[in-house]
Amino acid sequence: MNFIEGFSKFNKTQKINWLLDNMKVDQGTTLIETKYIDDALQKRFENFSENTIANFHLPFGIAPNFLINDKVYSIPMVTEESSVVAASCKAAKFWNEHGGFKAYTKSMTKVGHVYFTFDLSSEIIEKVFKDNIERLLNCTRAISLNMDKRGGGIKSLELLPLDKLSNTYKLELRVNTCDAMGANFINSLLEAMSAEFRKIVIENHFENHFEIIFAILSNYTPECLVEASVALNLNQINEIDGMSAQHFFSKFKKAVDIAKFDKFRATTHNKGIMNGVDSVVIATGNDFRATEAAAHSFACKDGIYKSLSEAEIVDHFFTFKLSLPLALGTVGGLTNLHPLASLSLDMLGKPSASELMQIAASVGLAQNFSAIRSLITTGIQKGHMKMHLLNILDQLGASVSQIEDAKKHFSDKVVSFQAVRDFLN
Amino acid sequence: MNFIEGFSKFNKTQKINWLLDNMKVDQGTTLIETKYIDDALQKRFENFSENTIANFHLPFGIAPNFLINDKVYSIPMVTEESSVVAASCKAAKFWNEHGGFKAYTKSMTKVGHVYFTFDLSSEIIEKVFKDNIERLLNCTRAISLNMDKRGGGIKSLELLPLDKLSNTYKLELRVNTCDAMGANFINSLLEAMSAEFRKIVIENHFENHFEIIFAILSNYTPECLVEASVALNLNQINEIDGMSAQHFFSKFKKAVDIAKFDKFRATTHNKGIMNGVDSVVIATGNDFRATEAAAHSFACKDGIYKSLSEAEIVDHFFTFKLSLPLALGTVGGLTNLHPLASLSLDMLGKPSASELMQIAASVGLAQNFSAIRSLITTGIQKGHMKMHLLNILDQLGASVSQIEDAKKHFSDKVVSFQAVRDFLN
Repeated sequence: MNFIEGFSKFNKTQKINWLLDNMKVDQGTTLIETKYIDDALQKRFENFSENTIANFHLPFGIAPNFLINDKVYSIPMVTEESSVVAASCKAAKFWNEHGGFKAYTKSMTKVGHVYFTFDLSSEIIEKVFKDNIERLLNCTRAISLNMDKRGGGIKSLELLPLDKLSNTYKLELRVNTCDAMGANFINSLLEAMSAEFRKIVIENHFENHFEIIFAILSNYTPECLVEASVALNLNQINEIDGMSAQHFFSKFKKAVDIAKFDKFRATTHNKGIMNGVDSVVIATGNDFRATEAAAHSFACKDGIYKSLSEAEIVDHFFTFKLSLPLALGTVGGLTNLHPLASLSLDMLGKPSASELMQIAASVGLAQNFSAIRSLITTGIQKGHMKMHLLNILDQLGASVSQIEDAKKHFSDKVVSFQAVRDFLN
Repeated sequence: MNFIEGFSKFNKTQKINWLLDNMKVDQGTTLIETKYIDDALQKRFENFSENTIANFHLPFGIAPNFLINDKVYSIPMVTEESSVVAASCKAAKFWNEHGGFKAYTKSMTKVGHVYFTFDLSSEIIEKVFKDNIERLLNCTRAISLNMDKRGGGIKSLELLPLDKLSNTYKLELRVNTCDAMGANFINSLLEAMSAEFRKIVIENHFENHFEIIFAILSNYTPECLVEASVALNLNQINEIDGMSAQHFFSKFKKAVDIAKFDKFRATTHNKGIMNGVDSVVIATGNDFRATEAAAHSFACKDGIYKSLSEAEIVDHFFTFKLSLPLALGTVGGLTNLHPLASLSLDMLGKPSASELMQIAASVGLAQNFSAIRSLITTGIQKGHMKMHLLNILDQLGASVSQIEDAKKHFSDKVVSFQAVRDFLN
């Protein structure tokens, strides 16, 4: 590649042409092969981000028959990973016969901060803050007017020192953003408050001892928390996957406990949960980096990184539950701008943010249940390998009869690209 | 929604029709509006996952002019978040004038485990393991033959007790998977080894004291680690964004330090890094849930969750670096199956997995640099709001002249859907 000046000013065709010229690989057709038929929609889509040259596509699938809080959902899922949608469907089917998923939103508070330094005694800045707290709150009234009307807005404002960093403080703003994810809203509040706080400090003649470092929302949202759970009476099941209910669920609990105490397993265990959660997050136009950061950061809230879900067996009752910080929106952002995100929300019956949190957490728990179920019985590869084999066969241009032969041949063998190619030759 | 039997057996059209009938919302056109012109490609794509009814699309953008290890890259990025590509471009431009990004791969070892319980003394199982380690390694020879030829394969096999869970152990397998992400490979090795280990235990008559719980790779990859860094001499810069170099970079360091000591900030700081990393991960057909889990789990390796990047100023030298566990592949999986992933890899000059790790980490560091630069100068909203305003105007169907008026009006005001609608009316 070469350096290029003014690339962002090129139109889309110029960008593509420059790339292809510089790559010396002719992939032009592939590049432009998927796009909206409707030009206006295509243009809107391209404006989501910068320098867009194509529509990168991921499979948009459906997991029907999810019973959550006694309501049936068909769940939109976007994932490129094979077996994820199938695993969700399988878990949904199993739990339908045992009352389905129960989920509730524990809290919906989000948080943001203005970080600053102050090198005189903390009592001074505490007094300045205390004397001006109403002014700080008032300066954001215009911004939060509409959110206030919808029952949201600022819940609290505090001044806190940063324990381990001397002369450093934060204003901590706690906010309810109703059905919006609210990142822009919170950041706007914080930047307004930051500017006002600076004015106040200058008016109090402390400007030489003070500096605003920055103002920003936090993606760590332990107070925007949802819990999803399933439960059953072991006595009501004879066997599952050829094991007694007692044996299956004891082994299941052991598998979850391992993820509580072993970081190597905990990471993958939670990754599996997020396979489910993120597929709903993306399908509904939400930001998966935010949900990922919150989930994994929450997973180490006690100083060791551990599983987000827990299993218990008490008096023949098995319960399996997931607590997850999940800051989602069902209005604003891309939720209305992306036509498939909008379709996803329609498919879910236009849920509130709280309801969407419950749905996503339930899918995360479903995913976790199916993964562990496979792991402790057939092993994870059986489900994965079926699709893996079909993908490889497709890529190698296998005929219908070759595909059938290969399916039989590999039913008890390890699938790899090389092995499949060898088999076909 | 209603329950539906046999949904997975429906063809795509039947699935879509059932959905639309049950949603009572007519969105059929939107649903099928983007797809491949080539039917075979479309069919292959739909087979990545289950119950696929549409191609969910995200913007595929380009960040040109990235200088990494003295080589110029145009970086493919898939992200729905506005400002991410622009921020990467801005950071690339700044660092081009200061030697660009330096990145190196510290190690490329991945890890997987067979977890099991054993309720006799640990010496017994340790002896069984020790006596049979060659047999355990040999049982996987057929699976790892091709990987061995390419210089990869098994690096070590150990038996370890789980400290906090009594009678519970793991076989820890350390593997080099060359340019493959290697999940299928590692899981296949582990399942073969797990079956063989079970046989061995039975042959030793300990089967009543032993149970395999499961075998699975770990997404926690602290030994598959890459470091990216930038550095400059403060004396070579007069000013940046209206601040002296000394002031700017001291404030920058302070901002990074806050993310070292404050979990609320660390989560968002790392989220910003992953905005960049994941955009490359997705564009190249890799699994972002895996990279997210590894990154955030690594962020709390010392018992507190903290920033993945670090800034230092020593003797007028500023350095900013990012250490990240990053298990990526450039062969296998979707890297060849997804035409745009394949294009991305061509665009990057068909990199090795190690080179791709260096590229993705550099983009993560670039993203982090630009985000902090905005935060400590203009604030984060200025960049975000520009695109946010354009999206809202587009959605409200604003005319060209209305768009120009709105841009002027909102240049110093907070953008919200309501505010823009009010302005237009």
